[in-house]
Amino acid sequence: MMERKRIIGVDPGSLHTGYGIVESGKGGLIRVLISGTIHLSPRKPFTERLGLIFRELVKIIKEFRPCGMAIEDVFCAANPKTALKLGQARGAALLSAITEGIPVYEYSPLEIKQAVVGYGRASKNQVHRMITTLLGSHVPGDSHASDALAVALCHLNSEKLRNLSKVR
Amino acid sequence: MMERKRIIGVDPGSLHTGYGIVESGKGGLIRVLISGTIHLSPRKPFTERLGLIFRELVKIIKEFRPCGMAIEDVFCAANPKTALKLGQARGAALLSAITEGIPVYEYSPLEIKQAVVGYGRASKNQVHRMITTLLGSHVPGDSHASDALAVALCHLNSEKLRNLSKVR
Repeated sequence: MMERKRIIGVDPGSLHTGYGIVESGKGGLIRVLISGTIHLSPRKPFTERLGLIFRELVKIIKEFRPCGMAIEDVFCAANPKTALKLGQARGAALLSAITEGIPVYEYSPLEIKQAVVGYGRASKNQVHRMITTLLGSHVPGDSHASDALAVALCHLNSEKLRNLSKVR
Repeated sequence: MMERKRIIGVDPGSLHTGYGIVESGKGGLIRVLISGTIHLSPRKPFTERLGLIFRELVKIIKEFRPCGMAIEDVFCAANPKTALKLGQARGAALLSAITEGIPVYEYSPLEIKQAVVGYGRASKNQVHRMITTLLGSHVPGDSHASDALAVALCHLNSEKLRNLSKVR
């Protein structure tokens, strides 16, 4: 029997950080417990924004007690300036998991698309549509929250595959 | 009379994070309370390294209770990949200040060199030599710790100038 698994997916950004908690239960049924986006005003000092990302995610982890955090593995960015900002936001998100003592699982954009849409070169729009189809009406229109749910789903699907290969 | 000021300077990096605490006392006398480098093995998972940077800096801030953190303001990096890594390490360092409730002061490389050497285009070696001259034998050979002390000194010098202009 498959045990109940609860995972937080995060899509970090210095202006919008998406998050979503999904749980897989009996019969592989997956449900969304919460999803949303932390919006960070560009007028706020950057350090304040980092603090907000960290504190909000810590609050959610404390409340829902997921067994791990799934996050996109970023290897490249448009330019060094964007990469620096993204890196700091990602660092704040990772630290919320680290300080709460839950493991971090990283997946490449290709793995996420493959796991959700079944096709590694799927568009952002296709991923969003698939997330809505898979998770139903709980999914917000916001692409950040939907991206966070996608990486969480990717983790659950990868776990499922790992368990299947163990049975064999 | 100038009040006693204690500041932590940090030079973040995903493999070496330098830190140093300086204190300015009576007559503008500046002394180093502690300085060092957190060395992070590239064989350790990246998230573990971020956790180490955060925890070590939190420990030092709790022990020495500086009134602020001074850190170099980074606008550019060699390439997006390096920038992402540096960004995450910088995010971990900033969060140690944010969670401990001390303000962060950012200075450009030009401001740091100007404040320490009196010349914005000084070489890394010149900065290191000047730090040794200004702070004496407490300064380690390590360039990361010395860079951390340089930004802390830059903050103290800028504060001094601000105070002087207030008196005028």
